[in-house]
Amino acid sequence: MSAQKIRVGIIGVGCRGYNLLKEAICKRENVEVVAVCDEYLDRAEAAAALVKELDNNDAFITTDYRDVLKMDNVDAVVISTAWEAHIQVSIDAMRAGKIVGCEVGGAYSVDDCWQLVRAYEETGTPIMLLENCCYGQYELMVLNMVKKGFMGEVVHCRGGYHHDLREEVSFGRENRHYRLRNYMHRNGENYPTHELGPIAKVLNINRGNRMISLTSTSSSAKGLNAYLMEKKGPDYDLTGFPFAQGDIVTTVIRCAHGETIVITLDTTLPRAYSRGFEVRGTKAAYFEDTHSVFEDGKHNEFDLDWKPQWNNAETYREKFEHPIWQKFLNDGLRGGHGGMDGLVFDAFFEAITDNRPMPIDVYDMAAWMCITALSEESIAKGSAPVAVPDFTGGRWCLRTEEPDWAFALSKICE
Amino acid sequence: MSAQKIRVGIIGVGCRGYNLLKEAICKRENVEVVAVCDEYLDRAEAAAALVKELDNNDAFITTDYRDVLKMDNVDAVVISTAWEAHIQVSIDAMRAGKIVGCEVGGAYSVDDCWQLVRAYEETGTPIMLLENCCYGQYELMVLNMVKKGFMGEVVHCRGGYHHDLREEVSFGRENRHYRLRNYMHRNGENYPTHELGPIAKVLNINRGNRMISLTSTSSSAKGLNAYLMEKKGPDYDLTGFPFAQGDIVTTVIRCAHGETIVITLDTTLPRAYSRGFEVRGTKAAYFEDTHSVFEDGKHNEFDLDWKPQWNNAETYREKFEHPIWQKFLNDGLRGGHGGMDGLVFDAFFEAITDNRPMPIDVYDMAAWMCITALSEESIAKGSAPVAVPDFTGGRWCLRTEEPDWAFALSKICE
Repeated sequence: MSAQKIRVGIIGVGCRGYNLLKEAICKRENVEVVAVCDEYLDRAEAAAALVKELDNNDAFITTDYRDVLKMDNVDAVVISTAWEAHIQVSIDAMRAGKIVGCEVGGAYSVDDCWQLVRAYEETGTPIMLLENCCYGQYELMVLNMVKKGFMGEVVHCRGGYHHDLREEVSFGRENRHYRLRNYMHRNGENYPTHELGPIAKVLNINRGNRMISLTSTSSSAKGLNAYLMEKKGPDYDLTGFPFAQGDIVTTVIRCAHGETIVITLDTTLPRAYSRGFEVRGTKAAYFEDTHSVFEDGKHNEFDLDWKPQWNNAETYREKFEHPIWQKFLNDGLRGGHGGMDGLVFDAFFEAITDNRPMPIDVYDMAAWMCITALSEESIAKGSAPVAVPDFTGGRWCLRTEEPDWAFALSKICE
Repeated sequence: MSAQKIRVGIIGVGCRGYNLLKEAICKRENVEVVAVCDEYLDRAEAAAALVKELDNNDAFITTDYRDVLKMDNVDAVVISTAWEAHIQVSIDAMRAGKIVGCEVGGAYSVDDCWQLVRAYEETGTPIMLLENCCYGQYELMVLNMVKKGFMGEVVHCRGGYHHDLREEVSFGRENRHYRLRNYMHRNGENYPTHELGPIAKVLNINRGNRMISLTSTSSSAKGLNAYLMEKKGPDYDLTGFPFAQGDIVTTVIRCAHGETIVITLDTTLPRAYSRGFEVRGTKAAYFEDTHSVFEDGKHNEFDLDWKPQWNNAETYREKFEHPIWQKFLNDGLRGGHGGMDGLVFDAFFEAITDNRPMPIDVYDMAAWMCITALSEESIAKGSAPVAVPDFTGGRWCLRTEEPDWAFALSKICE
């Protein structure tokens, strides 16, 4: 469909969906937003006004996503609803023949993930998880290092969603945010993919490797109560609410080839933002928190005095900047689509235009999202190990020889 | 026994024991080294020569530690043997009425830890685990922050033994190092106390809190083989040896009051040294790797740009430097006993002289050391959760009102 515009309906235009329209979707030559949907009419109307302003399109407005799926002039949907709707809307969209780009979040059950995979397998409708962090500058640089053998054999990765969301969660009524109800009632690794996505690409998950089991352990929940006590006082009804969601959830994943992954949910205590990305190989290591690379044979003398090397990752950009970022930086900002949000949508729309496989496909989506449900299960069982399903039905052993993700993406840079 | 010298026998004088004599034990006014023991005679003789050189004492030399325990003129023993002997020698020493200072390591079974506790309870002989990292400058500063309420409620701590030991382990035959056999045959968190000790003090373990369960997960073992391939080549017999010890072991511990602790063994891949100390509270956080403090209400504007705050922990020293370190820095180096090795022996010898309880007692020792055996068990069971025994027999609930560790130590600063 390279000659014509991709006609997009966006489903869910809260804060994230609205910003995606503004920063990553509108003002593309080959994309036309033809429908906007949100369960809150005011949000849908605001989004339509934005589309009118930026692209001079009159998008159809609705509060029922099924209306969008019925539209003949919709080629693809972008789903940026509350977490609870991601999989159901994705399945319904695939069954309606609409290509799916789905925002990130975790699954509520493993069965949901199976349903998602089966819907894809039955329909063949392309679907991509829009994990922007897979397109982060340093995540891609490190992936490039791994692909080029600089790291040696990778045996361990770490990452986290370290993001102080106390305001967003605590004021969830005021801002109609789905996180509040999830933090009130659930306890698990509710947002694994920002860190797990890039790690899965490093470890070739679903392409000759897979996650086989995990344990998950939650701390107590103290952060939101302390925050609400300070912001709202002791008489506010949520101040004393027994939030189910632990402040820190640590999930340890084992992979088929013995690699381990540690991911951390860390959203209700004071700290600065980080995705805590670390990759550990037999020849080198990368540490996001000090933005540094340890290269065996070069840095060993700094063993006990690493501080002077903090931030040295910058010096590796010349050699290892990923082609996607090289091109992006050379081209300058394109239509305001800066950084990883722009790049993940570049990848999505270009895969559609070129009729190529999605770089983050349904098997990645199911494997990454199921971690949330499995984390809840492990925590419920006192941190018992639980198995990660093989959503590929054994095809992960065959997929080793397919072009890897970085290679597929590099087509963007032709 | 404040008027007389403490007569010490040191058992195990490999690299660590020799250096302890040199840096932390000899040249003390109130300490006299009267016996040195090592299973290798040459080591014992070298240690005796050092004692002669530094203190002009003629220490008794033996290769059998039981000889030392029989000596009437030995008041206390310092045990710095291979890990395997720590608990047995400690038990035998307590039964012989010799006060024990034992170097750190992990236990080989939970039963060993029970035997240790029972020997103490039956004999009443004082025993201290010589965990020097409890006396680290920043570990103590952070403990002080916690005690003063600066952190709010602490809900999560992290630490690691991040130390590239590939040379020490791989050349274990040449340097007669016990780590080699352990890395060849065992797989677990073999060295937990450097990070767990300071964390246990932060979380009041055995004083109103305790560790209740853990999971442990090991990565594959690739680091030593890659290292040996480079250093010794493919024909060296150890190069292809299937080392049991995984490169990265992640252990997640839950405590009675819902706090979680993550500790990491990380000794066979290239990287710089760190103990990865992190303390997370409802009001503030400390991160060793960036040597920074995040203070709620003060640093929130740096949420997405933390880099300018790296190293800011230095600015907290004026307010929170622990009294032990204040005094230490004001006094200057005393007899070459610099830093935490000197301070842990200060504490040990002063507890003996003043007839005070040991600041790291037999219950701490058993609780911290058992983590190794439990980690092996959890890994053997596919990361299954295992319970941490209560070695205090319920007395941890009563010990809340005892003077806490920091307070006891502050007597040093009188």
